[in-house]
Amino acid sequence: MDEQKQKGVLYVVPTFLSDTQALGVLPMSVKKIVENLRHFIVENEKTARKNIKKIAPNLSQSEIIIHPLNKFTPREEYEMYLNPCLQGAAVGIMSEAGCPGVADPGAEIVALAHEKGIRVIPLVGPSSILLSLMASGLNGQSFSFLGYLPIEKNERRIRIKEIETNSRRYQQTQIFIETPYRNVKFLKELLRHCKSDTKLCVACDITSQNEEIKTQPISVWEKEDLERYHKRPTIFLLLATP
Amino acid sequence: MDEQKQKGVLYVVPTFLSDTQALGVLPMSVKKIVENLRHFIVENEKTARKNIKKIAPNLSQSEIIIHPLNKFTPREEYEMYLNPCLQGAAVGIMSEAGCPGVADPGAEIVALAHEKGIRVIPLVGPSSILLSLMASGLNGQSFSFLGYLPIEKNERRIRIKEIETNSRRYQQTQIFIETPYRNVKFLKELLRHCKSDTKLCVACDITSQNEEIKTQPISVWEKEDLERYHKRPTIFLLLATP
Repeated sequence: MDEQKQKGVLYVVPTFLSDTQALGVLPMSVKKIVENLRHFIVENEKTARKNIKKIAPNLSQSEIIIHPLNKFTPREEYEMYLNPCLQGAAVGIMSEAGCPGVADPGAEIVALAHEKGIRVIPLVGPSSILLSLMASGLNGQSFSFLGYLPIEKNERRIRIKEIETNSRRYQQTQIFIETPYRNVKFLKELLRHCKSDTKLCVACDITSQNEEIKTQPISVWEKEDLERYHKRPTIFLLLATP
Repeated sequence: MDEQKQKGVLYVVPTFLSDTQALGVLPMSVKKIVENLRHFIVENEKTARKNIKKIAPNLSQSEIIIHPLNKFTPREEYEMYLNPCLQGAAVGIMSEAGCPGVADPGAEIVALAHEKGIRVIPLVGPSSILLSLMASGLNGQSFSFLGYLPIEKNERRIRIKEIETNSRRYQQTQIFIETPYRNVKFLKELLRHCKSDTKLCVACDITSQNEEIKTQPISVWEKEDLERYHKRPTIFLLLATP
């Protein structure tokens, strides 16, 4: 127990989803913790430095050490990223936007921390999945996040129908995402393949000035102009009627 | 569009999971918004007033109107709770702990707001589901929240096995909860019914001083003293090996 206490902590640090002020979406406690961190594991150094500056303007950029984590990082390398924790220092893991490890890289590092007996502390911040679910009015007692659906037309059609069937059978909200430039095409496919009374929530530009969250049956979506969703970060949530 | 703009907004307001300071888990923006609200829809008036006081100490309790939302509230009554929005005032919906609408009541009110064309704005705050997922190191690209499992012994055994099978097949993290006084019994059942290499995260007392989040294979959990989880609010996350 004593040995564990002397190890440094791995903080899982959320960041912005949109161009908001730091304290608009992050608790003061996150600012204070980030101000005291010297080691960060991040997806992209440039964005990370920008975000850290916004969260903790007093933290000198030359004092912090940034370790990149992406698909090219070999496991042996990122094993070493946790060495500061073993020596008693705290490390922060941050993704490009939102919450690390949730629809974002970071889980491998966190898993490694558990293996090494390093304490992991998650910090509060914006998650487009959670915020869109809260605002959707759909079932939050049971929900499933599925990430991206297949791109190939036929596979995608089959998957959409499967998602709708599962949602009906288990009365479970199904949550998924798409690359923003494909939103309009994707929405049209959803309207084509889903039943008219299935409820669809489109949650767009979460936490930004342009935030727009709308839940209505497919039959009402069919009457809407969908072009406005082009290239805007969007989450889709679906709940079929029993 | 103009008509919509004149309506008041429904804010989905998160609150504490544990006895922490307000700005430890809520952004400053939430404090500012709550300070300006006069209408709240809540599960329990007493807890709500206590939480509102903690978030916005300057807000006079005699100035706010609290509308109770629970299983006894008839739909006709809670339909009226949104009247202030129709008249241009903002309303906040708050649950006992965490995020309204997520493993908590509130979704019906939000659904009604969408039907009435009232804008819904979700605010950032602590969610034990999201925080435990971030800190688990398990798959956050695909996950499912299932709420409570059946209580009856046989049904529960079947459900646990089904959850493990689904987790393996889809490589999806399965998240579920239990009434805290049943934690130890439930953990023992998980250990009995799951495969030894299945990873289990037990996330306990999230955001409190006693927070404890641990991920390890079932085979390692079998060697642990589980009694310490008795009566502590806990989330369970499971990921089976492929």
